[in-house]
Amino acid sequence: MRYELYYWPGIQGRGEFVRLALEDAGAAYVDVARRPRGMVAMSRFLESRSVKRPPFAPPFLKAGKLVIGQTANILFFLGPLLGLVPKDDADRLWAHQLQLAIADWVAEVHDAHHPIASSLYYEEQKREAKRRAENFRVERLPKFLSYFEQVLERNGSRALVGNAVSYVDLSLFQMIEGLRYAFPRAMTKQERKYRQLIALHDRVAARPRLVAYLASGRRLPFNQEGIFRHYPELDDQS
Amino acid sequence: MRYELYYWPGIQGRGEFVRLALEDAGAAYVDVARRPRGMVAMSRFLESRSVKRPPFAPPFLKAGKLVIGQTANILFFLGPLLGLVPKDDADRLWAHQLQLAIADWVAEVHDAHHPIASSLYYEEQKREAKRRAENFRVERLPKFLSYFEQVLERNGSRALVGNAVSYVDLSLFQMIEGLRYAFPRAMTKQERKYRQLIALHDRVAARPRLVAYLASGRRLPFNQEGIFRHYPELDDQS
Repeated sequence: MRYELYYWPGIQGRGEFVRLALEDAGAAYVDVARRPRGMVAMSRFLESRSVKRPPFAPPFLKAGKLVIGQTANILFFLGPLLGLVPKDDADRLWAHQLQLAIADWVAEVHDAHHPIASSLYYEEQKREAKRRAENFRVERLPKFLSYFEQVLERNGSRALVGNAVSYVDLSLFQMIEGLRYAFPRAMTKQERKYRQLIALHDRVAARPRLVAYLASGRRLPFNQEGIFRHYPELDDQS
Repeated sequence: MRYELYYWPGIQGRGEFVRLALEDAGAAYVDVARRPRGMVAMSRFLESRSVKRPPFAPPFLKAGKLVIGQTANILFFLGPLLGLVPKDDADRLWAHQLQLAIADWVAEVHDAHHPIASSLYYEEQKREAKRRAENFRVERLPKFLSYFEQVLERNGSRALVGNAVSYVDLSLFQMIEGLRYAFPRAMTKQERKYRQLIALHDRVAARPRLVAYLASGRRLPFNQEGIFRHYPELDDQS
């Protein structure tokens, strides 16, 4: 099966959580919108009136005749096919539950720099972003980090779900990477408290296929158009 | 199987999407936190260090030994057990994809009155809420409504998924109800454009078990503590 991933070509964004799973598994896939005329194909699909089950937004994945939208749903589908989740139904639901908490966390990272509207520039909501980002750093960031640290510890500290690395661990790796880019000062202070999570991040980063992927041109750099953005004024000032 | 639902006792909130499915199916369930000392039981569970798979937040559902968190995940699990989703795997994924879009919509409704922080009072973020609510009404509300109207039309207009009412239709009913409470003026204008959705809402509202539920004390009224709140200054002013 050759998968087709559809996502905005210039950013890691939500698509990156899917890419990491495909790359880690060595799956055959096409990153459609990054190919020549790929954006045209993606827009045409999103705007077509003949698609019976239209995705609300990218990312979406084509797998044969199936078209699957919503990042966490894509990973729920791919997990067993890529060997990136335990096979048991209860474990799959639990992994998905954690992935949905990560989805909420991602949305909060986005809203830290865009608290009023995605359709407005950052500069048009800078004042509000300062307030929201402070709340994010002080309250929400420690809440999510300590939750996942607990989940990891209660599972024996090797992986978040089951005994082997799952797509949830890959996504957690991506969260740490993104947060370090966006909030380097806040993260420097926070990371000391969550040593198990950071150790998990490091183990994921050392997986051979991911080492190769992260060093390749397929891994887009973080930038100021994505979900994780580095505005120094939104980071810890102390 | 008698299900146990855990959710904040004073509001409809996210728990209501689960309640509607349980009620429509006539399932046996206990709304734990609304019973005497039920909040103590819920808090104790959330704070316990011995729970191996802790939910991030309410709602969560106990079904035998399983504990399932995240509203959309609970519905994904319950759907087939309650006969509220087609059995086919592809249909279940599609229903879940739509439910996740509804989850995003719910989060945006919440952030319309709390754009800075859930932990602050509305009065502390009123100015920001005015900006965000305007963007929600003008851009986001029509985007979600027209998306679901399209999905409904492309499926033949009777139900959002498959040929019979699913939990996604029940959730859509709840969205319309909540939006009418929160933004009565904006909704009066919008509804004319989405006649199929409103007709679906009305069919759901007429289902016998839901008629009984909605008239019962089990249905909490909307109020100013929930996700859908009516602040006239956030509604359409024209």
